[in-house]
Amino acid sequence: MVLGVKQDKTKRGFFLTSVQIIVLFYLITVIIATGVLSLPAFHNPGVSVTFVDALFTAVSAVSVTGLSVVTIHETFNSGGVIALAMIVQIGGVGVMTMGTAVWILLGKKIGMRERQLIMTDQNQSTLSGLVNLMRQILGLIMIIEFVGMVLFTFLFLKYYPSWKEALYHGFFSSITATTNAGFDLTGQSLIPFKDDYFIQLLTMILITAGAIGFPVLIEVKNFIAERKYKERYNFTLFTKITTITFFILVVMGTVGIYVFEAGHFLADKTWHETLFYSLFQSVTTRSGGLSTMDMNHFSTPTNLFLSAMMFIGASPSSVGGGVRTTTVAVAFLAIWFYAKGRNSIKVFGREVMTEDVQKSFIVLIVAFLICSAASLLLAVTDPLPIEKIVFEVCSAFGTTGLSLGITPDLSTGGKIILMVLMFIGRIGVLSFLFIIRGKTVVEHFHYPKEKIIIGQ
Amino acid sequence: MVLGVKQDKTKRGFFLTSVQIIVLFYLITVIIATGVLSLPAFHNPGVSVTFVDALFTAVSAVSVTGLSVVTIHETFNSGGVIALAMIVQIGGVGVMTMGTAVWILLGKKIGMRERQLIMTDQNQSTLSGLVNLMRQILGLIMIIEFVGMVLFTFLFLKYYPSWKEALYHGFFSSITATTNAGFDLTGQSLIPFKDDYFIQLLTMILITAGAIGFPVLIEVKNFIAERKYKERYNFTLFTKITTITFFILVVMGTVGIYVFEAGHFLADKTWHETLFYSLFQSVTTRSGGLSTMDMNHFSTPTNLFLSAMMFIGASPSSVGGGVRTTTVAVAFLAIWFYAKGRNSIKVFGREVMTEDVQKSFIVLIVAFLICSAASLLLAVTDPLPIEKIVFEVCSAFGTTGLSLGITPDLSTGGKIILMVLMFIGRIGVLSFLFIIRGKTVVEHFHYPKEKIIIGQ
Ligand SMILES: [K+]
Ligand SMILES: [K+]
Repeated sequence: MVLGVKQDKTKRGFFLTSVQIIVLFYLITVIIATGVLSLPAFHNPGVSVTFVDALFTAVSAVSVTGLSVVTIHETFNSGGVIALAMIVQIGGVGVMTMGTAVWILLGKKIGMRERQLIMTDQNQSTLSGLVNLMRQILGLIMIIEFVGMVLFTFLFLKYYPSWKEALYHGFFSSITATTNAGFDLTGQSLIPFKDDYFIQLLTMILITAGAIGFPVLIEVKNFIAERKYKERYNFTLFTKITTITFFILVVMGTVGIYVFEAGHFLADKTWHETLFYSLFQSVTTRSGGLSTMDMNHFSTPTNLFLSAMMFIGASPSSVGGGVRTTTVAVAFLAIWFYAKGRNSIKVFGREVMTEDVQKSFIVLIVAFLICSAASLLLAVTDPLPIEKIVFEVCSAFGTTGLSLGITPDLSTGGKIILMVLMFIGRIGVLSFLFIIRGKTVVEHFHYPKEKIIIGQ
Repeated sequence: MVLGVKQDKTKRGFFLTSVQIIVLFYLITVIIATGVLSLPAFHNPGVSVTFVDALFTAVSAVSVTGLSVVTIHETFNSGGVIALAMIVQIGGVGVMTMGTAVWILLGKKIGMRERQLIMTDQNQSTLSGLVNLMRQILGLIMIIEFVGMVLFTFLFLKYYPSWKEALYHGFFSSITATTNAGFDLTGQSLIPFKDDYFIQLLTMILITAGAIGFPVLIEVKNFIAERKYKERYNFTLFTKITTITFFILVVMGTVGIYVFEAGHFLADKTWHETLFYSLFQSVTTRSGGLSTMDMNHFSTPTNLFLSAMMFIGASPSSVGGGVRTTTVAVAFLAIWFYAKGRNSIKVFGREVMTEDVQKSFIVLIVAFLICSAASLLLAVTDPLPIEKIVFEVCSAFGTTGLSLGITPDLSTGGKIILMVLMFIGRIGVLSFLFIIRGKTVVEHFHYPKEKIIIGQ
């Protein structure tokens, strides 16, 4: 944070770009988290955690992925669990607000609303507008988590012998759901609650709150606050696109799971079991990572389909990973309008910027390359069925945390590959790409342009 | 052709766009080829070919892929084999020249050289410049095929009892290699010649001649012809990029196969066996489809690597398929320059056009979507190991024709999926996309532009 603030004043650091500083911030957080999770005081009696496993857990927590090489409640005592929850909270909310901060530092806009918010705050320095924004995010997430904790505690009274224990589980469940961390204290995710639709509904709502994107939360808050003064609230193009894409993906996922599994896993289930299994597994692929079933029961096509959904991931500027909803939406719109021969992308009475189209294309291609290369490398380090490798790779890159169970038994090389994927998935492909970018070079000379034959 | 010529005069047809006409031309060719290959007169005694298998063979031949659901020499008599060679020739050369023709009809340039060629020919109509160009292609390919046939016949004398038989095999081998069709009369590709490096070298040269791209061949021809008059010949940017990419891919492929298989398939081989196995398998993934070994002997990572190489495919405006070399090269350059913060892509003293960058991104993303969707569907219709499915999908899309042996036993649904892939691979992703494009719409009104957060 101190580093980040210092950089803000000069816009660019002495040595490092803003993106490089953010990456450094993540790395430092991971190192500290590895140290904390290695402390024997946080482990259950007789348990020892290797360096690689502590590092893996740290990366998974900071990136709020939830893939795990250890069983949380068997490895960590209640102190360790609370420490893990704190790391997850920093990873989810802290890094999220850091992400927002860097956006503004980079001169990017969060949206019309937020720009106005900062501009009306102009009397104060840009920095304090930023701090104000970050305070809003933190406030909103904390409120959501607090409400979630209270409701979870109430629901858990049925399952745990004491108030204290229900509260402990409610606290952890609310944080792990809202930050989309996907860690669990049951050792088998939400499978013990596969028939408790209240717990599932609450989990889905919290996952969605975290994954839908922070600018969306702020706009919805402002919409509610300003309803009494204004007749019509104008949501930004960003909020419209990301929210619609998010819910299209949830519906597509639910229908897809139903279609692929109707004659298989869902064959002997009642209508409400079918609905909740399909819906929950769909919502959780956005970035949640909790699960009400063992996904090895799904067929291979279903798991490939879920891999694709995890690859897409959550909204930008959220607790989630993957290529992000808007990337897919903008690329889809751009390709569709291009195929139809239109020269501009018109949507919701606005036009999408060429620069954003270029970004979305680049993110998709680089993300695909990264995941393909990672799958190939994993096939070398750990010769497992490719569909399982692809699933785990997409889960790590999407910082989703769903697993077909191969992660704990991976070789050290395999674990390192997944760590790198979780890290890239969390900071985002563009940030990853910009690690190599120095100061922007504007070249004032030009060569003649020449056409090339492409793809035919 | 008549259709094509008619369209040329009006630039756009009455009902159909140029791309739609080319697709129609392909479809008609496939239908006629299916009819020809279904004729009992072309079958060996006692053999009957189902409609789906005749259709599959026709699509494979017209798209010069070489994937096959029947064993050619067991199914077809010598008349049938010659008919197949003719279809392959039309598919390879005819469609290639058609492709070139449509390029010009669409107002695209083949390159500076070819534009000059047409412009100096201006006294005649554009059409006759076009015909001249197509005559050049046909002439070059026929010369290459004739030389190939003579050399193959000479080399085959060692293996076949009579001149006549050697000529028959030489004729077929030269056509199948030069057009990159990949069909064979041995029932086991080039495996019988796995120790004959002359046959392998000749095959590699012919595959390269067909896959390197027709504009490259013409430029090389002009380079040789003009050497006596001019001191310095300026190759087009297209030729430089596609040729360099082609050979980088060949070297990468060779090294990749060596690295992946050094401790496995190549472990007990001599240095020259190692070199030829690696080199030949690398060249053949450009689009050739012939093979000196059963690829089931390769490990899964190697076959995934080869799948990626086949997905890339050959040069544009060649006999090959896939996303094409320039697509990958331009996308790579664009992403690299973007990551480095440069505002223009400078290469060989030229700048790459923004429009070409956009095209390369779109081709890559759509191709990836098509292959992923096809793999998912195949996993449903034919529950086989995913690595085998991905291999066959990439082979079909790259119109490569290499196989892990699953194609003949696919369900009808699976065969249809591969047919669609071969078809799209051959016409190219852009043409496929433009099937839905009507007249280009230039919209003269605009909405305000609004930024969106992408991928972070
Ligand atoms: K997660
Ligand atoms: K081929």
